[in-house]
Amino acid sequence: MTQFRSGCPIASALDLVGDKWTLVILRAMAMGATSYSDLSRQAERIASNILADRLTRMEAAGLIVAAQPRQGSIRGAYRLTEKGAALLPVIQDLARWGEAHIPGRWQPPPRFYALKPDDLA
Amino acid sequence: MTQFRSGCPIASALDLVGDKWTLVILRAMAMGATSYSDLSRQAERIASNILADRLTRMEAAGLIVAAQPRQGSIRGAYRLTEKGAALLPVIQDLARWGEAHIPGRWQPPPRFYALKPDDLA
Repeated sequence: MTQFRSGCPIASALDLVGDKWTLVILRAMAMGATSYSDLSRQAERIASNILADRLTRMEAAGLIVAAQPRQGSIRGAYRLTEKGAALLPVIQDLARWGEAHIPGRWQPPPRFYALKPDDLA
Repeated sequence: MTQFRSGCPIASALDLVGDKWTLVILRAMAMGATSYSDLSRQAERIASNILADRLTRMEAAGLIVAAQPRQGSIRGAYRLTEKGAALLPVIQDLARWGEAHIPGRWQPPPRFYALKPDDLA
């Protein structure tokens, strides 16, 4: 159970997603990553123990759910919930800010900025 | 000098502001806090050593500058740069998300959502 620092919706949102990895994992899922191995192969090379910890926290916070494995499908797959997908504007804003204010960043694929939360959950 | 994890603008933005405090400090400055003591008196009761560390990092990242003290004015005052003020949409989206998805959060004052980056820097 998360202990919130205050009733502020910004501070409380950051109590759930205010770290270096959660929104990077959300970016990867927004761009189609679903499995643990997809997520561990991102350019940022998240360490396995950190990835496992963040996925557990994200599931506890209701941002992702473990996808029901179908017969023959991979285990350890995840999908975004509506609550998780609703963070899309935050990562789109961070991308715009990073592109504008940090030299030498990659340009996201055009479809990234066109995504809507409903496309993800 | 920040070591960026990748060229991704989202991951790089989070290398600068992806922690529990930086965007809370930015929220306080967006709402008018300027001095060290204003910032230390926020509802979240940020510890003095963390506040000092984050202000140093925010200044190094070009998000804030130490305001030139005028005669008789307080020392230790800060203002947002254009780069810092440009993070406003991120905290506005976090506020919308927190209000919609975390029960019992405070409702921000109406002027918060009406703010534009140009109002802050």
